[in-house]
Amino acid sequence: MEQDLNSLRHSAAHLLAHAVVELYPDTKLTIGPATPEGFFYDFLPTTNFKEQDLPAIAEKMREIADRKLPLTHKQVPKDVAREMFKGNQFKLELIDGIEGDTVGIASQGDFHDLCRGGHVEHTGLLKNFKLLNVSGSYWRGDRDGQPLQRISGTAFFTPKELRMYEKRVAEALKYDHRKLGKELDLFSLHEEGPGFPFFHPRGKIVYDLLVGHLKKLLQQADYQEIATPMMLSDELWKRSGHYDHYRDNMYFSEIDKRNFAIKPMNCPGAILIYKERPRSYRDLPLKFAEFGLVHRYELSGVLHGLFRARAFTIDDAHVFCTPDQLKEQIKQMVSMTYSVLNKFGFEEIRVGISTKPEDAMGDDALWDKATDALKHALESEGVPFEMYEGEGAFYGPKIEFRIKDSMGREWQCGTIQVDFFLPKNFELEYVTPEGTRAQPVMVHRAIYGSLERFFAILLEHYKGRLPFFIAPVQMKILTITDDQKQYAHELLNTLKSHGYRASMDESSDPISGKIKAAQLQQVPWMLVLGAKELENNTITLRHRDGKQEFGLSLDDLLKKAEIAQK
Amino acid sequence: MEQDLNSLRHSAAHLLAHAVVELYPDTKLTIGPATPEGFFYDFLPTTNFKEQDLPAIAEKMREIADRKLPLTHKQVPKDVAREMFKGNQFKLELIDGIEGDTVGIASQGDFHDLCRGGHVEHTGLLKNFKLLNVSGSYWRGDRDGQPLQRISGTAFFTPKELRMYEKRVAEALKYDHRKLGKELDLFSLHEEGPGFPFFHPRGKIVYDLLVGHLKKLLQQADYQEIATPMMLSDELWKRSGHYDHYRDNMYFSEIDKRNFAIKPMNCPGAILIYKERPRSYRDLPLKFAEFGLVHRYELSGVLHGLFRARAFTIDDAHVFCTPDQLKEQIKQMVSMTYSVLNKFGFEEIRVGISTKPEDAMGDDALWDKATDALKHALESEGVPFEMYEGEGAFYGPKIEFRIKDSMGREWQCGTIQVDFFLPKNFELEYVTPEGTRAQPVMVHRAIYGSLERFFAILLEHYKGRLPFFIAPVQMKILTITDDQKQYAHELLNTLKSHGYRASMDESSDPISGKIKAAQLQQVPWMLVLGAKELENNTITLRHRDGKQEFGLSLDDLLKKAEIAQK
Repeated sequence: MEQDLNSLRHSAAHLLAHAVVELYPDTKLTIGPATPEGFFYDFLPTTNFKEQDLPAIAEKMREIADRKLPLTHKQVPKDVAREMFKGNQFKLELIDGIEGDTVGIASQGDFHDLCRGGHVEHTGLLKNFKLLNVSGSYWRGDRDGQPLQRISGTAFFTPKELRMYEKRVAEALKYDHRKLGKELDLFSLHEEGPGFPFFHPRGKIVYDLLVGHLKKLLQQADYQEIATPMMLSDELWKRSGHYDHYRDNMYFSEIDKRNFAIKPMNCPGAILIYKERPRSYRDLPLKFAEFGLVHRYELSGVLHGLFRARAFTIDDAHVFCTPDQLKEQIKQMVSMTYSVLNKFGFEEIRVGISTKPEDAMGDDALWDKATDALKHALESEGVPFEMYEGEGAFYGPKIEFRIKDSMGREWQCGTIQVDFFLPKNFELEYVTPEGTRAQPVMVHRAIYGSLERFFAILLEHYKGRLPFFIAPVQMKILTITDDQKQYAHELLNTLKSHGYRASMDESSDPISGKIKAAQLQQVPWMLVLGAKELENNTITLRHRDGKQEFGLSLDDLLKKAEIAQK
Repeated sequence: MEQDLNSLRHSAAHLLAHAVVELYPDTKLTIGPATPEGFFYDFLPTTNFKEQDLPAIAEKMREIADRKLPLTHKQVPKDVAREMFKGNQFKLELIDGIEGDTVGIASQGDFHDLCRGGHVEHTGLLKNFKLLNVSGSYWRGDRDGQPLQRISGTAFFTPKELRMYEKRVAEALKYDHRKLGKELDLFSLHEEGPGFPFFHPRGKIVYDLLVGHLKKLLQQADYQEIATPMMLSDELWKRSGHYDHYRDNMYFSEIDKRNFAIKPMNCPGAILIYKERPRSYRDLPLKFAEFGLVHRYELSGVLHGLFRARAFTIDDAHVFCTPDQLKEQIKQMVSMTYSVLNKFGFEEIRVGISTKPEDAMGDDALWDKATDALKHALESEGVPFEMYEGEGAFYGPKIEFRIKDSMGREWQCGTIQVDFFLPKNFELEYVTPEGTRAQPVMVHRAIYGSLERFFAILLEHYKGRLPFFIAPVQMKILTITDDQKQYAHELLNTLKSHGYRASMDESSDPISGKIKAAQLQQVPWMLVLGAKELENNTITLRHRDGKQEFGLSLDDLLKKAEIAQK
């Protein structure tokens, strides 16, 4: 089914290209794949496309769809293909890059495209599509390469699916975290630091609560927190392999004519602390946690609020252990991951194990042991999982966690990644009970993944209505007249001294205005105090959804709050 | 007296230069000032000086001192001076830079140096000196300029003062925080990031306790915490003035062919959040706090553990208020500063106000108002202070706090700095009660200053014996035999559940070994459990200094701990 949807969307990309060529014959085609969300096609047009060109292109696509042109696919000799695409340097480059003597050509009517295949039967099946936007891209994603224009869209089998998609998009737009971030005064983004979030006081509170929640669990599980520098020398990143594999995503600076990278990952720092003193088997498992701020380059076109930023904090941990300890450690990590994700309202979690790829390092026995450890850990926690055969990183197998939010979207957050590579590269050692030296296994794991991104997911998941335990302001006291001010202040102090995040509306607005203001701020509990409450020494609790509870004593309120806090 | 000591030390610098010229006649002299700790002279030698050359130089200095040469000072025409120093490009450059037609020349015997004056009578008074070290420096401190060699030393009036100094230095060396940091496993420094500290688990605990202590006070005082990015665009730093005045101490990077600086200060970030929405007089004072990690270039020669690092966290706050609110705000800041410094055992605090310099911006009335606010705030808190006339920054007056540590050394930590400049440059505004627009005053303030540096001061001040409330491990349970293990584990869990940082020695060492290990770690309280304690359900509390308290019940212990925690 997923394969079918891919074929449909890939065919829709061909349909798009076909329409563009009919409307703008001098446009050069490059590539047009299906994506998890839809499809796109990258063009080199003679004049840049604009959003307002999309309706005409969509109209032409529908017209070609109505022709019900059969989609065919055949292999042709490379020379023939070169002749077909002469004058298009991109297609010629693609042809050169394909192995063998022939290449695949997809055709519909007089439109032909270089293609590996996988299509629907005819263009008539492609009516349920929607063009989404025009953006900038680069040939082969290389930002020093030829700039191109990308038209993105999506397609479904039925009109109903398309309508559901549009509804979901509209809802996501309404609860876009960037919009909520502004409305609720949580964070902002500024031209002076594109992709670098600024946390406002309320956003910083939520951020700190996310950190604080995890810190408690880390402490219980005997993790030890460290902090490593933002900048480290090029030589270190060369040794860790990041310089070779990740350089394009790193920022660099120079000190005393020596090159330094701003850290894109926290692992080398943790390794230097591991190596700072001799380690014995008695020290293992050694569990370092770091809330590490990393900086990674992203194209400006793909920056997206806190979802995709250029700086974010990973709730990182690096666990050094013996191969025999691996299973128990993974088990504990899986259990902590579930505890955290459930806490924040994510019940539907999809788990997968990625196994040894072809270009892997390390011997099979070690891989098997590690992969078995991952499997057994998941099994013993009663967690169902999928196997992604051959999809692991070259340095070790991993577990990935995907959560489904309230709008049905999936997000990859946590990972547990076994690593044979870095311990070897950095010659990590521990002394065994026999007095010999052995290499520890290293496990990288994150639960939130990026704290900033998780914050944004939470905001959209809860549609801005953060639950009591993580709301920046949990309770707001609203007096009906100034007569209740003293009562209000006493209540405020009591709530604060119990550790609650409480505030008070000091304005002279009428109670309706105060309620409205608190509701716009998405405060979970409004505590309304009028003449009656003052007289009886009670509190009226008004929930965000309008439900009210009258005549609560302070004790009642504190008991309720204690439950809501958990 | 301080002036006299300066004259003595400046004269000692001349004596040093005189000795060097007699020993190495081709050495070029540059400058040789007195410093708060002693003096130095920067040379361009024909062959680099080494530490082992210092005894011979000192010997020659003593020999010249014995000659009791009178020190004279006179003004000579610049042409005469140019002739005297021909061939020495440094002196010629200095002569060109001096205003007027004449320059001062200091002479002793046949030695002459360019000099503004201020000396002792004759070289015989300069016997109580000590040469300290040889280091690299640059002409005019410009790291792109001519590299020079600096010989540093110190001098006193009497042999007794010199002996006391030597004793203090020996003690400081014994309790050097870099040594303690290693011994107590608190932090480390690595060649992969020179000047960028790595915090080990125990160091991170202390660091977090410092942050946590201040956070509590900030919350009580209605500060709001923010977090701003590490990298911001060059244009912003140009507008803030940092690019012009501070560029040489900043690190830069490039993103999409645009220049960014790694922040050396947190103010511009706070200003962008201030400007994010319209502000009214009702919002003021608006008190933003930020534990902001800053990066600043330091010459590798002056890096000194956590005292002088290239990255550190400022416990920064930026308060935006009306001119009328200034006094009350300053008062609160002074009071919080005292509360924090006293808490950490600093009772002797020297306070000074630096006033309007000649090149100041802003009109006199505003300066007077701000300076008065500073004075009155100190007076109303009953704090004695000195006036440093004309020593303020060009953008506003400031208060500086200097603490004296247990070894008698002074450290400048906190500052409260009024700023008229940034609000103007960034066109900050608030709406007044009358509906007009006005410019807020901005106050920068820090209490610890640099958290890393304060940590190091604490370590040396307490000679590694951090007090109970800030010790990374507060209590360590030591069992005499394995029979007490279960009792020990129960006690450990109880202590942890009360929020104490407790641990247990799980080794099979004899009790004497366990005590020794805990003492090396500087754990304030050892809880010794033997057969008797198990039988009577009691605890023996052994303090770090060896004092013991027997037969404590759990309740006794918890009560004691609660007091020690405060």
